[in-house]
This record gives sequence, structure tokens and C-alpha cells, in this order.
Amino acid sequence: MRTCGGVTQLHGASLLLSREGRGHLYAPGSAFHTFTGSQALRGMLRRGVTGLVRRLQKEHSACGAVTISTTRPAAGTASSRPKLKVHQPECLKQPINVPSKLLMGPGPANSPPRVHQAMLKPLLGHLHPEFIQIMDEVKEGLRYLFQTRSEVVCCVSGTGHAGMDTTMCNLLEPGDVILIAENGIWGERAADMATRHGAAVRTIKKPAGDVFSLDELEAALEQHKPAVLFLVQGESSTGALQPIEGVGLLCQKYNTLLAVDAVASLGGVPFFMDDWGVDVVYTGTQKVISAPPSMAPIAFSHRAMSKVSARQTPIHSFYSDITWLANYWGCDGVPRKYHHTGPVSSVYALREALALVCEESLESLWARHAACAQRLHEGLAALGLQLYISDPAKRVPTVTTIRVPEGMDWMKVTKYFMTKYQVEISGGLGPSAGQVWRVGLMGYNCTVDNVDRVLTIMKEALDQ
Amino acid sequence: MRTCGGVTQLHGASLLLSREGRGHLYAPGSAFHTFTGSQALRGMLRRGVTGLVRRLQKEHSACGAVTISTTRPAAGTASSRPKLKVHQPECLKQPINVPSKLLMGPGPANSPPRVHQAMLKPLLGHLHPEFIQIMDEVKEGLRYLFQTRSEVVCCVSGTGHAGMDTTMCNLLEPGDVILIAENGIWGERAADMATRHGAAVRTIKKPAGDVFSLDELEAALEQHKPAVLFLVQGESSTGALQPIEGVGLLCQKYNTLLAVDAVASLGGVPFFMDDWGVDVVYTGTQKVISAPPSMAPIAFSHRAMSKVSARQTPIHSFYSDITWLANYWGCDGVPRKYHHTGPVSSVYALREALALVCEESLESLWARHAACAQRLHEGLAALGLQLYISDPAKRVPTVTTIRVPEGMDWMKVTKYFMTKYQVEISGGLGPSAGQVWRVGLMGYNCTVDNVDRVLTIMKEALDQ
Repeated sequence: MRTCGGVTQLHGASLLLSREGRGHLYAPGSAFHTFTGSQALRGMLRRGVTGLVRRLQKEHSACGAVTISTTRPAAGTASSRPKLKVHQPECLKQPINVPSKLLMGPGPANSPPRVHQAMLKPLLGHLHPEFIQIMDEVKEGLRYLFQTRSEVVCCVSGTGHAGMDTTMCNLLEPGDVILIAENGIWGERAADMATRHGAAVRTIKKPAGDVFSLDELEAALEQHKPAVLFLVQGESSTGALQPIEGVGLLCQKYNTLLAVDAVASLGGVPFFMDDWGVDVVYTGTQKVISAPPSMAPIAFSHRAMSKVSARQTPIHSFYSDITWLANYWGCDGVPRKYHHTGPVSSVYALREALALVCEESLESLWARHAACAQRLHEGLAALGLQLYISDPAKRVPTVTTIRVPEGMDWMKVTKYFMTKYQVEISGGLGPSAGQVWRVGLMGYNCTVDNVDRVLTIMKEALDQ
Repeated sequence: MRTCGGVTQLHGASLLLSREGRGHLYAPGSAFHTFTGSQALRGMLRRGVTGLVRRLQKEHSACGAVTISTTRPAAGTASSRPKLKVHQPECLKQPINVPSKLLMGPGPANSPPRVHQAMLKPLLGHLHPEFIQIMDEVKEGLRYLFQTRSEVVCCVSGTGHAGMDTTMCNLLEPGDVILIAENGIWGERAADMATRHGAAVRTIKKPAGDVFSLDELEAALEQHKPAVLFLVQGESSTGALQPIEGVGLLCQKYNTLLAVDAVASLGGVPFFMDDWGVDVVYTGTQKVISAPPSMAPIAFSHRAMSKVSARQTPIHSFYSDITWLANYWGCDGVPRKYHHTGPVSSVYALREALALVCEESLESLWARHAACAQRLHEGLAALGLQLYISDPAKRVPTVTTIRVPEGMDWMKVTKYFMTKYQVEISGGLGPSAGQVWRVGLMGYNCTVDNVDRVLTIMKEALDQ
């Protein structure tokens, strides 16, 4: 006999008992019964539920001293409904299998214990005052991280890609021109998303690993006069770092909004939303912030919100509608309405991860990422490996791309890391697929010791 | 002096040390320095970092026995970038404040300890084989919960509303007619979403608390010949339970797809996707399943997927594109491609919550919800309170709506519950706002003892 949440089960029958001995019995294939009379009930229990069910079916009104009401519940009576045809899967009877790994790929990174611990805390309602306070604290942490005083700083309740989708669906109306600077997979994805929202997509392309100069961007802005320019600060498929400084001024000159994907870079390199004139920026929680993947922090400038307010067509997604999100996150000065149920535990985790970011300081985070990346790059050179991006100024410290030497099977190396040491490094993605390994240095995992560990294993792997 | 992740900070300077004593020093306003020579470095450390920075700035090449290379990191040099203008918020220096509450409103419900514990487990990559296995286990649990053998069973990485958005954006093309059975806020929301995707929305309306008969639905299907019929099984704003059985057959007759919102009802009442001919169903994790709010489990029938395949226009959202989601969840027989980063910890939690559902069995869950609801309803009647829905057959057991007696301030009662006992019951929503209290009986929280607790507090509150 086993008990789950107040329900006792025996021979396929379910019996619910209150503390006073009042009970409700449900047996598949029979009606639903409510009992009163605690002593008699206990007596019957001693005789076993199966016998009880049989007896109930026969007598159906009184059973010794027990009053039985054969009340049919409001729904779900056995008589009218189909039989269960899909049964409990065997696999869920086994314990969950989660090995411990060091995630040194391009994300997710591991989360620190304090962040995991936060998710042990009990759930709150998504509009309870204590939860709203936690959301407010998250907003303040994000304002620091984005370096913005913008009002509209919040999170989309989805992972990094949801941030990209939210950017596109709010900023773009059918026919709007968007200029996408494409030098890796994220530009490609952005173009895909923008097309889905009916935008006229223009691209300016660079080979994988390269980035765009201010002159090149200005020429393209002049040519296309786009409503939106989309840049990726850290192209995690290639390891390239796109300079953002100066682009905002150019965009203002051409009446263009500047949207930046900072998923793989934010916290690892400087970012100044207000000083750089960025209109929309988003990131993911699972990279430098080092919370589990769950949300996409996002900020809109006043200019970006003006474009949203002036829309002639509806925003395709209600869930990602920034005017609703801004209200739910208390960014618009209007009392919060019910938009959607926030991912409560994930917000706790993000809050704690941001507290750690703030405690360390951005300057220290940037220095730590730069120093660890430099150590990694020097160590790789000492192993005779070449980086995919030759110009150090064009490398994002959070994702290092390493050329796979001629004739070598990249997968053998990543498998060696994983099989022997449970350490993840990744292969390439999109334009870099098959050509590189990618090593992530992000947040909690970005330490000198982890760099040294990767270098040691890499040496071993190459020696094989 | 404090150390965070291998970084030592003192007087605004950051020093990163490797185990061999090799170090990297970063001081705001100065260049970035890399050191070798462990003994000398340790000596310098004893003299203090501030003095070291000054000396470095003077000498810049050699400092006693230490070799110093003044390498500028690839990005983030202090000289070229703006100063931080937004500082660390004070609020994040305080510990997170999460009181313990019993959530007896319409969701989220509390999660059992095993579900919280799952989120302590270390992160995995979103395409690691162990994580894929956990996703597969989740799929099997969901097939049981939905009672379907459909291939396309997965989760949207967003909360319940994301399930609604995903349903609309995949099933509807501009101009498609959707018939929405509207008897509460979820029908209204569905109409809003469908309109955003360019659909021609037709509604059939019933007063709040009422539901639709097969005859009424058939008349509307005949009149509008919609591509999609949208029903809400458990209208949590009113507490109404819409019968679904029989509707699928009608829909097939009119070549209509049947989409059902089962966010507030699934697991609490019978649901048979295949037997009832449902084409799309979605739910949320934070109701009867009793995981934290984080994902929207969703299933598409073969008919629904055929409509998606035959689309002439793109699905507006890349993130919610069911063909991509189905591939990421391994539902299409094609090797998984990178779509988005799954919410790893949330999937662990869902896996454990589904394991508990399967262990208890659907029959027991349904019986438990029916029995607890009946007990609650009888107890409320004994207190002289009236239910909002008079016909017991039309009540969903997961959300009980109680009429606020004439002249009574509903908010005083909900505040009494929360302030004195940290128990949540809710007011109305949408059409029921101001008229009802809503008591949730969902999953982990659906026990006889919780029912009795609510009744005891309600009596006290009414006596005040």
C-alpha cells in the first residue's frame, strides 16, 4: 500500500481520508463513493479495500454502521470515459540521471551553488509583493549589467533565442527594413526571424571570424536606410567580438534603431547601453551571468519604445509583447496587470546570480574574462595550436575558437575531454562547423584553474 | 580583500592568480598587466596591490625579479571606454526574501521537495545525451498525461501562455477562420493572440461560469466552418469545466482542428487526446503537475502537423515553431539540430514532477481532485457560502469559484488568509473579478488537510 498526497492506493482503488476519518473511495470501473463514520471506516480498512469495493457495489447505500453516499463527482466518472491506453512509462520509475560535468563549451556554463540553492526556496505567486520585490531587484541588477537607466529593463520568460524573437517581433512591422550584420550563425538566425515577421531583410556580410568597421556599417546604413540595425556583440559560432562603440551615433544619424545580441558576451566584455546608444539589447541567463538557462534579460531604450508605440500593426506575439512585459515588470508606471505567469524559481536563481555579479563588479568580471582568455590563448599557442581569429582585438574572451589542425578528427578530442574527464568543449557551429573547437570561459567557470585544466587535457588529447 | 572566482580585489584593482603564482593584474584607469615569477609576485602581494599598481605604472617593464608584460586585452581596456555610471544596487547586497506560503489560489501550486531537489543537480548541455534522455523521459510522461500516442509531444520553453501563443502561431495563417468558445478570460486572450497572427476570429459566447453543449458547438461549426476551434477545458477565471468528449468527432466532420487549453485542468480531470480527437493541447507545469512555472507541455496530432506542413506563410515565431521544437525534442525522426537552449533545470524539475504523477496514476489523481473538490464544496455550503457555478457537472475540481456574499469586501478575506496564515486564495479574474474568491486544488496541494485548512480559515475570516 502506498500513500501519495493524502491518497491511499490498494489493488487499483484509491481511498482519500480526512483527519476525522471521513473518506472518499474511488475504484476504477465503479462509481465514486463518499463515506462518513470513522470507526466503521477503519474497520473496513482492516478488511481491505478490495472487499470493500465489492461490498459497496452490492449494497450501495449502507454498509454496517457506515453511511455511504454514492455521489458521482462533477467530472471523470469511470463509466462514461475511455480506458487509459497509454500507460505509465517504465523510464520514469528510475531515478533521474544527471552526471556532474564541467561545462567549458559556449554555454550553458555551470551555476554556482548559491544559484542552485535559490531554487530550493518555496514558490510564490507571480504577483505576490515579495516576488515583485525580487523582480525589482533583478531589474536593478540588469540595469547595472547593461549600464542603462532605461525604464524598460526586464526579462522574457524564455531562453536567449526568445530575446532575439522578442526584439524582432516588437521592433519590426511588415515592410520595415532591417539591416543585419552577418558574420556567423546568429546573424543568419536573426535574418530568419525578421523574415518571419514580414520585414525586408538586408544583410551586410563578413567572413566568419571577422567583424564590421564603423565605415562599413555607415556605408550600409546610408545605402539601406534601415529602421533597425542588428549586430551580434559576441558571435559564439566564430568567437568574434564586434565593437559596438560608435555605432549608436551612426544609427541616430540615419534614424535607425540599434539592436544588439549580447547573449554570449555580456558581463565578459564592457557594454554600455546608454553611452553607446544601444536601443535594444538582450542576453541569456546561462552564460556569464551563470544562472540556469531560463530567461532572456532585455532592455529597450526610449527611442525603441517610441517605435513600438507608433506601430500600425499588432505585435505578433502576445507573450513577447514588450508593452505587456514592461507592465508586468513594473517598468511603465502603471499598476501591474496579469500578463503571464513568471518563471518564479528561475527568477530567484537569476536574482542570486546577479547579486554575485554585482558583488564582484563589472570591472573585475571583465578583467577576469580578459585575463583567463589571454592565459588560454597563450597556453594553446604553446601547444602549437592556432586560434581561428588571428587578430586579438577581434576575439571575444568568452568563446575561444581554435583551429582543428589539418587531418585531425575534432570529435575525437571533444570525446576525449568528455569521456575521460567529464569536461565539455565543443566543436564548431554554422560557418565554423568542423573547423574549430570552441572553449567557453563564462562567469562562474571562468577561472585560471579551469583554463589550466582545459590546457592540460588538450595536451593529453593531442598527444594521443 | 575578497576573492571571487579566482579574482582577488583590493582597492579597486583585480589580481588573478594561477596555481603556479602566475598572475594578471587589472586596475581601473591603468593598462592590463600579466606577470610571471611567482616568488617576486608573492613578495609584491605582501607589499599590497595598490603600491604594486603605482610601481607598475612607473616602471612598466620590470619590477624586481618579476617579468611584466603590459599586454592590452582584446577588449575592454579602461582607457577607451566610458566610466560606469550605473552602480551596483544596494538591494542585491541583502539576502533574497522568500517567505513560505501555502498556495491555494489558481496557480502556481507549491512543488514537492523532490521537484525542488532536482534543480540542485548540476547543469548539462542542452544537447548532451544524458539531457536528451531526460527530455525523452519527459515526453513519455507527457504522453501518459495527455493520453496520446502522437509523435509530436514536447514543451515550449515558456510558461502556459507560451503554449497558447505556440498553438495560435503554428495553426493559424492570415485569413484563417478560428472559432473561439469564449466564457472567460482565456477565450478573450486566445482571441487577442489569434488576431495578432492575422486570423479571422469568430466567437461563440456564454456567460461566465457556463459551458458549451455539443449542439451549440456544432451549430457554430456549421455556421463558421473554421479551420480551428479553440476550447478551454478548465476556465480558471470562472471555475467552469468544458466537456471535450464528442467535440473532436464534430470537428472532423467540419474539417476543423480542435485546440484545447488544459492549463488549469490537466491531471485534475480526465483528458484523452487521442480518444477525444484533440489536435492540439497544451498545459502549464505549475498547476496539477506541480513543478515550478517554466514550461508549457504541448502535443500536436498528425492532422495538426499536416496543417502546419501545408502552410503558405511562415510561422511568425522561430522560437515557437513546432517543426523546430519537434526536432529539438526528437519527435520527427530526424537528428536533432540546435534550435534553442532548453531550460535545463526546469526540465529536471518537470521530469521529477511527471515521475510523481506516473507513480500516483491518473485515476488516482482524478479521484483525489474530485474528492477534495467535493469536500471543499460541501464545507463551503456548510459555512453558508454559495458556489459561483450551481451545476456540479460544470465545475472544474482544480479551481473552485465562491460567490462573495452581498456587501462583503472580498479583499479583506484574502488578506486575512495571507496575513494571518500565509495561505493564498485569490479574488476573481476577468469576468469574475470582484464577484468571487478562487480556491485552487492542484496536484501537490490537493489534499484533504489543505481543504480543511482553507475551510477553517474561511470560517474564521467570515466570523470577523
